[in-house]
Amino acid sequence: MFIAYGMKLSGNCYKLHLALEQLQLPYRWVEIDSMHGATRTPEYLALNANGKVPLLGIESGKYLPESNAILCYLAADSALLPNDRYERAQVLQWMFFEQYSHEPYIAVARMINAFLPADDSRRADLPRLRERGNQALAVMEQHLATRSYFVGERYSVADIALYAYTHCATDGGFDLASYPAIGQWLARVAAQPSHVLLGS
Amino acid sequence: MFIAYGMKLSGNCYKLHLALEQLQLPYRWVEIDSMHGATRTPEYLALNANGKVPLLGIESGKYLPESNAILCYLAADSALLPNDRYERAQVLQWMFFEQYSHEPYIAVARMINAFLPADDSRRADLPRLRERGNQALAVMEQHLATRSYFVGERYSVADIALYAYTHCATDGGFDLASYPAIGQWLARVAAQPSHVLLGS
Repeated sequence: MFIAYGMKLSGNCYKLHLALEQLQLPYRWVEIDSMHGATRTPEYLALNANGKVPLLGIESGKYLPESNAILCYLAADSALLPNDRYERAQVLQWMFFEQYSHEPYIAVARMINAFLPADDSRRADLPRLRERGNQALAVMEQHLATRSYFVGERYSVADIALYAYTHCATDGGFDLASYPAIGQWLARVAAQPSHVLLGS
Repeated sequence: MFIAYGMKLSGNCYKLHLALEQLQLPYRWVEIDSMHGATRTPEYLALNANGKVPLLGIESGKYLPESNAILCYLAADSALLPNDRYERAQVLQWMFFEQYSHEPYIAVARMINAFLPADDSRRADLPRLRERGNQALAVMEQHLATRSYFVGERYSVADIALYAYTHCATDGGFDLASYPAIGQWLARVAAQPSHVLLGS
């Protein structure tokens, strides 16, 4: 039985929710309200010194943070993680792209735009976040123009990682209608067996 | 024969240089001056649409970007990447930590402090970058206080990934003397066989 520590409305935590359901793994969800300090308590920092969600409890004393590392752990020896050396490296390539070139703009724009008060000073960051986020979406659009999924023409944890914040990018003020190949890929991902909705 | 496209002074590119030397793999280095637009040419963007270094040329038509995905690819089936499922996931955990919580602060502070003119407006970002970078160093210090290496008490690609920008953090104005466990770990990494210096 895994323990998934996360906040249901977070895209990074949603990745776990999707993988646990689609891999039909037994788990218990522990809601951690990272918007209100629950990741900064001494008890939580003892489990994850970096003070972030999600976190996977594997067994007594074994914990794993970092959403994309958790996806790779859960998907080991499953159809969601290719065995081929180059394909597996491409899955990681897109996961690192997600955490470095995509999430810091698209997820952060969503957080500011959808969750902070209308007069919050961080709204001044939105134009720059949207510019960089659109650069990431353009890279994805070009890649998906000739492909059904990110790697090897099969649904993998790379798709889960990128779906999490792309499918709700409109929350951050992004116009997904400008990216038709992304739109078709989002529909393919949402049609996978055992798909669950963000926040459910 | 691999082709390593990179800029020798970049820590992300240095990761490849270290791994290629330490794994004794045959390669040719192609210097790409990303500080002066060489990653934005049509020819380079055709190889890596995300316009970044490093990039690994594997064989005709096969390329792999993202420094940490390249490390995992190169280290497959070697002593630098553990076979155990949990240890391998922990290697990825620290690599995602590096790209999300470490590099955007410690590498960017170095770039601004060491490479931009004294009157560059981005110097105003340095206090915030140093605050966040020190948070990452504190997480590493706590982890290394009871360990020799990041995962499984063995040198791995997680150490290479974190060494790249940590060992030169003073370039960005960080005081490594405040982190004794990191200092001892840096010495252990530098003492590995076939270690090479940044920029060499």
